[in-house]
Amino acid sequence: MKIQATPASELAKLIGAKVIGSAQKHITGLNEIHRVNEGDLIFVDHPKYFKNALSSKATAVIINQEVECPDGKVLLLHEEPFTAYNKLVRHFQPLQFSNASISPTARIGENTVIMPGVFVGHEVEIGDNCIIYPNTVIYDYTHIGNNVIIHANSVIGSDAFYFKRRLSKLEKLESCGDVIIHNDVEIGAGCTIDRGVSASTIIGEGTKIDNLVHIGHDSTIGKHCTIAAQVGVAGVVDIGDNVILWGQAGIANDITIPNNVEVYAQSGVGKDLESGKVYFGSPAAEAREKFKELAYLKKLPSFIEHIKNNT
Amino acid sequence: MKIQATPASELAKLIGAKVIGSAQKHITGLNEIHRVNEGDLIFVDHPKYFKNALSSKATAVIINQEVECPDGKVLLLHEEPFTAYNKLVRHFQPLQFSNASISPTARIGENTVIMPGVFVGHEVEIGDNCIIYPNTVIYDYTHIGNNVIIHANSVIGSDAFYFKRRLSKLEKLESCGDVIIHNDVEIGAGCTIDRGVSASTIIGEGTKIDNLVHIGHDSTIGKHCTIAAQVGVAGVVDIGDNVILWGQAGIANDITIPNNVEVYAQSGVGKDLESGKVYFGSPAAEAREKFKELAYLKKLPSFIEHIKNNT
Amino acid sequence: MKIQATPASELAKLIGAKVIGSAQKHITGLNEIHRVNEGDLIFVDHPKYFKNALSSKATAVIINQEVECPDGKVLLLHEEPFTAYNKLVRHFQPLQFSNASISPTARIGENTVIMPGVFVGHEVEIGDNCIIYPNTVIYDYTHIGNNVIIHANSVIGSDAFYFKRRLSKLEKLESCGDVIIHNDVEIGAGCTIDRGVSASTIIGEGTKIDNLVHIGHDSTIGKHCTIAAQVGVAGVVDIGDNVILWGQAGIANDITIPNNVEVYAQSGVGKDLESGKVYFGSPAAEAREKFKELAYLKKLPSFIEHIKNNT
Repeated sequence: MKIQATPASELAKLIGAKVIGSAQKHITGLNEIHRVNEGDLIFVDHPKYFKNALSSKATAVIINQEVECPDGKVLLLHEEPFTAYNKLVRHFQPLQFSNASISPTARIGENTVIMPGVFVGHEVEIGDNCIIYPNTVIYDYTHIGNNVIIHANSVIGSDAFYFKRRLSKLEKLESCGDVIIHNDVEIGAGCTIDRGVSASTIIGEGTKIDNLVHIGHDSTIGKHCTIAAQVGVAGVVDIGDNVILWGQAGIANDITIPNNVEVYAQSGVGKDLESGKVYFGSPAAEAREKFKELAYLKKLPSFIEHIKNNT
Repeated sequence: MKIQATPASELAKLIGAKVIGSAQKHITGLNEIHRVNEGDLIFVDHPKYFKNALSSKATAVIINQEVECPDGKVLLLHEEPFTAYNKLVRHFQPLQFSNASISPTARIGENTVIMPGVFVGHEVEIGDNCIIYPNTVIYDYTHIGNNVIIHANSVIGSDAFYFKRRLSKLEKLESCGDVIIHNDVEIGAGCTIDRGVSASTIIGEGTKIDNLVHIGHDSTIGKHCTIAAQVGVAGVVDIGDNVILWGQAGIANDITIPNNVEVYAQSGVGKDLESGKVYFGSPAAEAREKFKELAYLKKLPSFIEHIKNNT
Repeated sequence: MKIQATPASELAKLIGAKVIGSAQKHITGLNEIHRVNEGDLIFVDHPKYFKNALSSKATAVIINQEVECPDGKVLLLHEEPFTAYNKLVRHFQPLQFSNASISPTARIGENTVIMPGVFVGHEVEIGDNCIIYPNTVIYDYTHIGNNVIIHANSVIGSDAFYFKRRLSKLEKLESCGDVIIHNDVEIGAGCTIDRGVSASTIIGEGTKIDNLVHIGHDSTIGKHCTIAAQVGVAGVVDIGDNVILWGQAGIANDITIPNNVEVYAQSGVGKDLESGKVYFGSPAAEAREKFKELAYLKKLPSFIEHIKNNT
């Protein structure tokens, strides 16, 4: 999330942190490590990730251990970086619940049809020539391009599913990202597309999504993809252009799927894939390899019995 | 979709096509090749499908190559049959978005309960003694029989997921079909049932559907089936009577499942099945064969190690 | 479902049953065999289950065969126990459809936000500091604790999917149970949580549920679980504390999953699991066993070819 440029020292004061390094640096965004840019503040609370965080593009890092501050960066020392970060998120983006079905701060383009029962949150932008079917819910800050169709009862911009397991509870990472839907996208009925936890969940131009599809936080989908019914895409997944995901396929967290990949129905993708290839299975492998395995598996019972009877 | 009987020559004029054959034939419907009837107009744009299209029951065919016209039929020669067909669809069934939650052209039977937040589109028919739970969305032209229960937030009649991949975009086949739900059907919460792209999606008498189930365009489901939660049925699937689909099973496009078939949970059906049999696996096979394979797969590691150590 | 204490003889009169045994016993609840308590009336209609039913905690049993009545119990002899039981369910809990989006009998706590388009049924209780996002539907009798978040278009309390297959139809077991959601639970967008058919579906304190998840009737989920997107939990499943179910996993009917179990994505659980273990596959097995099988399956084609070429 972009914020108004604010000196790191001022953010430190808001969360009661000790400042190490360039206290006067101006911070222009809050972000999670996966999607960080220069000017951003991030948090880290486990030594395993310290190196990654400190060498990232982040300008400021909330951290729970006194370490050397890299040149040109600033550290905010705090016992609970996760909780402190959450406090900043809600400071810069307080929850404001709309009483109106269509928020007065929403901007809706020309020739766009908003059907009965649709909810449109604060600061939402919807372009021209869109059709938003009944009872669809569009959370605050969502950006929708032109010629976009969203079928009934879909939900755009719900919170990221992102929790830290504490000893006696699950602590939520507060979402402050958004959803960006580019021109000419069609989204089926009953879909859910989560907002980025700090960055954007993006659906690329011309991509078509069938019914009951889930797209997780901060995932980006390229242009002209087709995603069949009941596919699930977890968080922070990067999908290229012209990708085809068949029905009920699932893509795990943090996966990269390059251009022109095809994933067959019910496959489960747990590793990065290679451009232009076709995959099948759970866990997914190249389809022809997987089909070969399955053909041999079919022969396995009689093969084992044959061996047993002949040795 | 049925249309008012119209001479083929007039349809040709609407799309700027050259007529070959019986120009005066009256056309009474627009249809997709899978569900075509006599009197229908269809389209074909790839030589691979020419023979099928020309020998089908269709009376008129929009086609992109000058071929011999079969006796008693009429060809409409057009560079882009897909686009021309779409133009006819929206000519005969223009999109008309209802401002009302319940369209004044909807017909709702006696003793039927429509709960708050429900949307009922144009020309929808709902029979007697139905219960439509809150926030359900029923698109235009849907027919619902008597004693039907639809749980909250389900969507009936959303557009078919049917796109043609062009060089730089996906072109949508415009839906003009409908959904027919027969008597005594119960549909769970959060389901999506797409309309036929040109014909009808049909749910047979007494069939019961659990939550979050997807039924694709032009699929027909027989009588007294049970379909458990999160099952996905793709487009143009034909399912018989008394079929049982357990949770999260998936059925691919164009599949036929005859009467009394049982498909176990999470199975993926990619081939036509046989009446009265039980199936499991992804891809699905007869359950006892599949379970046998899995039992042998369990023994495989120790079997291979044993062979290695003894040869 | 609890009912006002009523003599068994009076219930027998309501359904036209013959009484055997302690006719004056007061009955305080209607229940299904899986969740029965003392004071409850249950039904049984197949000799296979007679022993179970008669030796259960039930005080009264509707039964279709004259058998010996256990001491201190009462039998209600009826040709169609299933139908007779249904009649009692709707006698004590008649369907009453709310015209209001928020029923006047609902009790909503302090500082709780109910967003536009939400439906709240009769006798619903919602605690303090909750956020109910737009177009969520909460059926009658649901109990929701404090600090609960429910995202848009979720459905809480829809009917159990529970049908008896008759010769020419599926007869529904009428639901009279409820849903109980404890404090600090978060439920994603587009989820469906069915009410108990006679008891309660329970989501334990602090549990977090992602989008498009289905939880079946009478299932109980412990504390601080995380359930990822598109998971399906069937009916009468018991899940302990700190359980993790990854995306698209499915849990079959009547399964027990104890504390600290982790089930990987797309797994299908068809047997009771053991505490603290990790599972994968469909059907699910211990993950390391399953991964070992899959590693050997990968080698299978070349192994079989090698054997063939060397014997």
